[in-house]
Amino acid sequence: MLIVQKYGGSSVANTERIFNVANRIIEYYKQGHDVIVVLSAQGDTTDDLIEKVKEISKSPSKREMDMLLSTGEQQSVALMAIALTEMGYPCISLNAAQVGMITTADYGNARIKKIKTERIKREIERKNIVLVTGFQGINNFDDITTLGRGGSDTTAVAIAAALHADKCEIYTDVDGVYTADPRVVKNARKIKEITYHEMLELASLGAKVLHNRSVELAKKYNVELVVRSSLTKAEGTIVKGGFNMEKMSVSGIAGDDKVARVALIGIDDTPGKAFEVFNALAKGNINVDLIIQSIGHEGKKDISFTIDTDALEDTKKIINNNIDRLGVKVVDFEQDLAKVSIVGAGMATDAGVASSMFEAMFDAHINIHMISTSDIKISILVNKADMKKAMCALHDKFALQY
Amino acid sequence: MLIVQKYGGSSVANTERIFNVANRIIEYYKQGHDVIVVLSAQGDTTDDLIEKVKEISKSPSKREMDMLLSTGEQQSVALMAIALTEMGYPCISLNAAQVGMITTADYGNARIKKIKTERIKREIERKNIVLVTGFQGINNFDDITTLGRGGSDTTAVAIAAALHADKCEIYTDVDGVYTADPRVVKNARKIKEITYHEMLELASLGAKVLHNRSVELAKKYNVELVVRSSLTKAEGTIVKGGFNMEKMSVSGIAGDDKVARVALIGIDDTPGKAFEVFNALAKGNINVDLIIQSIGHEGKKDISFTIDTDALEDTKKIINNNIDRLGVKVVDFEQDLAKVSIVGAGMATDAGVASSMFEAMFDAHINIHMISTSDIKISILVNKADMKKAMCALHDKFALQY
Repeated sequence: MLIVQKYGGSSVANTERIFNVANRIIEYYKQGHDVIVVLSAQGDTTDDLIEKVKEISKSPSKREMDMLLSTGEQQSVALMAIALTEMGYPCISLNAAQVGMITTADYGNARIKKIKTERIKREIERKNIVLVTGFQGINNFDDITTLGRGGSDTTAVAIAAALHADKCEIYTDVDGVYTADPRVVKNARKIKEITYHEMLELASLGAKVLHNRSVELAKKYNVELVVRSSLTKAEGTIVKGGFNMEKMSVSGIAGDDKVARVALIGIDDTPGKAFEVFNALAKGNINVDLIIQSIGHEGKKDISFTIDTDALEDTKKIINNNIDRLGVKVVDFEQDLAKVSIVGAGMATDAGVASSMFEAMFDAHINIHMISTSDIKISILVNKADMKKAMCALHDKFALQY
Repeated sequence: MLIVQKYGGSSVANTERIFNVANRIIEYYKQGHDVIVVLSAQGDTTDDLIEKVKEISKSPSKREMDMLLSTGEQQSVALMAIALTEMGYPCISLNAAQVGMITTADYGNARIKKIKTERIKREIERKNIVLVTGFQGINNFDDITTLGRGGSDTTAVAIAAALHADKCEIYTDVDGVYTADPRVVKNARKIKEITYHEMLELASLGAKVLHNRSVELAKKYNVELVVRSSLTKAEGTIVKGGFNMEKMSVSGIAGDDKVARVALIGIDDTPGKAFEVFNALAKGNINVDLIIQSIGHEGKKDISFTIDTDALEDTKKIINNNIDRLGVKVVDFEQDLAKVSIVGAGMATDAGVASSMFEAMFDAHINIHMISTSDIKISILVNKADMKKAMCALHDKFALQY
């Protein structure tokens, strides 16, 4: 079998953990499998580098940030290669340039365009364990890019897809996907199998286990994912295509407390204004999540939308630069909000889910600011202080506990 | 003018120093010069990485060490680019792969074969300040190599040579080349100008300011070097071709307390044995310095040589692997030694220099273990404890003080 494994930063944070991961890798290799391992930067490496930058510049060049941050993963793969060699196993580390991980030129948020698989294939043929830097690529000018959030997961899935790997295992510090974040909802339950579609909704809603980009890619190329812990032997959660095996209306609850809301009040009610707003934001690489537009009156309307709080500074700049052109009267930024969502493939055919959700919020005296729905999820925006209470109430309401 | 500057690790060790260097760079750029800057890894970055490795392996793969250590310089150039951008100046950082710094495949000690100058030239034409990672290259397989000791100086000189730069400034934490290490010899004096040839002898003898590889390269391509401090405005020392302008017999004293001596006693006195010894060491990339061979008797002879103490472990391995083949009876390793040398282009024509040196040692009651001479230097091996005393005595003897 050809197996791609990805280990996150906490899994390789120190020497002990590096050897722990090395042992896992060797376990598979000794069974005769070909193993490709994607690694993130060690523990706090990336954060430490970002701290250094903060002393130098508040708005650093994105190209140079990628040049800087990509060193973290390179250190990880080299250290792991040294550990595996010490243990007597043949291996080689490769960075993005060596792998030929070609991406777009969007520094900080690049998309993988192509993987030149020749080098990896050659190393696999030589029976080397191949260690690949996650999170990064190079663009057509040989400049280093990074893939943004969830980048290392995406690297692993992309390699698994490109090489038609039999399995892609995502090792993390939790042992699978839960019905809700166990740190928030005490009686949350581990899910055995979940569909790409459900996982996508959970991931994009802040379940923090797998990033939606990697799941989207896995879905597109039908790569079977396993999410599991690098610290225990527990079986993880399998993410794959097909139907939801557990057949429940709601399979999970997600909470995201990094939500900021932007309200553009008194915007001109002429065609194309909303497009102009979101086009400007898209050009600035701002991901907009929930959107609400009021019905216009007196030639004016209001548009509210939510973004990740990390994007707030960039968003403020873009909005302020366009304030005249858009004819906005008042701009309001609000940070202390959280998004709580219920996800489940069975929801679309179960009319009672939405009303049960609102009932649970009413019973818990939680005020709902915005609502957004799709086929398999319902999201509500609540005060940040209410997030935990809301998640627990929903978990109980939909009987997701053990 | 096209100016190449190199700043060492202590010059970019923290944010304050990064801005200090950025200001120097900008000073030249504002005068209309094209500036290429070669940087080392920040302060202790490389040592910290080596510490991490020590926890993992005692004899790490050299390829992976280069993969690991090269990240330090990449961080430096990215941070400097962020600082220069913050100050409003156009710049770009380039690593060895991007520069096209092609080297041999000798990991840990690679030689520069070629620089593909297209990218640097293009960036210079765009009026970018170009920041280049020192110390590293890539081999023909796109694998990362490092250049070994003095690597960043060598990078700077190689770029200056390849681009026919008008000047190559080596910034360090001392303000020039001194007649002796001022930390050892209190009244040492800064030298204004020194020839490549003298500098070579001083550098290879432990003057620690410029590595001999960079000076050799500068000599070969006639690149005028300036050694100066990044912390003061003091004029440095110019290293160039031609004659010694100061016309003294002895221009400097060097001390090196990282000397180990290996004695092979009772080796077979047959032709080619010495060659076998040093060939085995050369294959292991061990630089042998002083060599003494006794006159053979009873079919046996003794060979002693000195090496850098860092190379002692590797040397022991090589010697022990070859002990039978060489017919060595006893091997003796000795570490507490130092080499003290006097250097000067005028020495060859001044017969009294050697006897003055020995007289100074006799007066100071210092025992000499080995002697080695060349046209422009005399080196002696003394006990490590005597090094300082020997250097001061020689400095006085040859009246090098202010």
